[in-house]
Amino acid sequence: MTAAQPEGAAPRRGRGRPSRTETEAESGPGTRDRILAAAREQFSERGYDKASIRSIAKAAGVDSALVHHYFGTKDEVFAAAIEVTFEPAQTVVGTVGQGLDGAGERLARFFFAVWENPATRTPLLAIIRSAVTHEAAAKVLRAFVVRRLIERVEADLKVPNPKFRAELAASHMVGIAMVRYVVKVEPLASADPEEIIALVAPTLQRYLTEE
Amino acid sequence: MTAAQPEGAAPRRGRGRPSRTETEAESGPGTRDRILAAAREQFSERGYDKASIRSIAKAAGVDSALVHHYFGTKDEVFAAAIEVTFEPAQTVVGTVGQGLDGAGERLARFFFAVWENPATRTPLLAIIRSAVTHEAAAKVLRAFVVRRLIERVEADLKVPNPKFRAELAASHMVGIAMVRYVVKVEPLASADPEEIIALVAPTLQRYLTEE
Repeated sequence: MTAAQPEGAAPRRGRGRPSRTETEAESGPGTRDRILAAAREQFSERGYDKASIRSIAKAAGVDSALVHHYFGTKDEVFAAAIEVTFEPAQTVVGTVGQGLDGAGERLARFFFAVWENPATRTPLLAIIRSAVTHEAAAKVLRAFVVRRLIERVEADLKVPNPKFRAELAASHMVGIAMVRYVVKVEPLASADPEEIIALVAPTLQRYLTEE
Repeated sequence: MTAAQPEGAAPRRGRGRPSRTETEAESGPGTRDRILAAAREQFSERGYDKASIRSIAKAAGVDSALVHHYFGTKDEVFAAAIEVTFEPAQTVVGTVGQGLDGAGERLARFFFAVWENPATRTPLLAIIRSAVTHEAAAKVLRAFVVRRLIERVEADLKVPNPKFRAELAASHMVGIAMVRYVVKVEPLASADPEEIIALVAPTLQRYLTEE
């Protein structure tokens, strides 16, 4: 008995194998995506603490063993859920280096495109809440941010200490997210994104390019 | 039976009056400060959720009614605990306007003086955790930040939309706190503060003064 392998997925082997005969619904090619969607929903709604492999499996309508089979531990499911949320960020990161002219403004515009959209804002808020309150979640986020975002941007920058510069730019965006979307302090909470971009883009540009 | 009034304190009247005879230890002039210290400790260690008037009273060695008497509700104790943490910030805010030359650098230096000191970092981390996870705490923080910090800085700035500018500067600092002290992403987590100040001070200066 082996789970059907969805395209592009590399299920973990050797532990957490499904322990009962799977139905078509459980092992179909959409299963992995369905588990991930359920994971994002569980982490968003219940928080890192209360979300569990069991609750994720239940929400996805599959056996807990199948969640283990595809992803491993709860931390690994969290990492995979984060990854999907940041997929568009990885694209923008790739384009930063294609031309450093205007990179600061592109970064700022991308930030608002993601945060002003409730569909992407909700999982990001969940990730921030988890990382702030649980060291395990912070560790997963930290590893992910370094490996997938910072190390990619870094390669394209021509400044001394590019990783440090990329993080400084990212930290500004994180702070705006905290003040605007989490604590919601006015006038920043309801300012026109264009007004913020006009002031912040030159800062990001300076961090990313000025020697 | 009335609690002795510590200097400068204005105990609330009309509700939550102590219900049993107080000992000298309970009503002495240091009582209010002892309750506040216990509140900061409880909010730091247990989080906003689990800290209660009862647990704060117990840690301070006083009756719950006395905590009510001095501060009112749990939100009001939280507000008072926040206030003490931000007292030095209010001083720096007052000095920003005394000369706008170098205000960005002074702000950045003040930020690190507070965050690099474990005694002030711990309650700040607790405030961030509470505000991120509990809307009630976010509301208290929001009201406090606007009334005590932003509105004071604003008056001294000569730029258009000074409140917005002050918040943009503050948001950058909040983001650095998140990346360096909460999520702890390297190299920002262990960079020399001077290295960060050198890059960030011109940004803050621009937000606070450039038209």
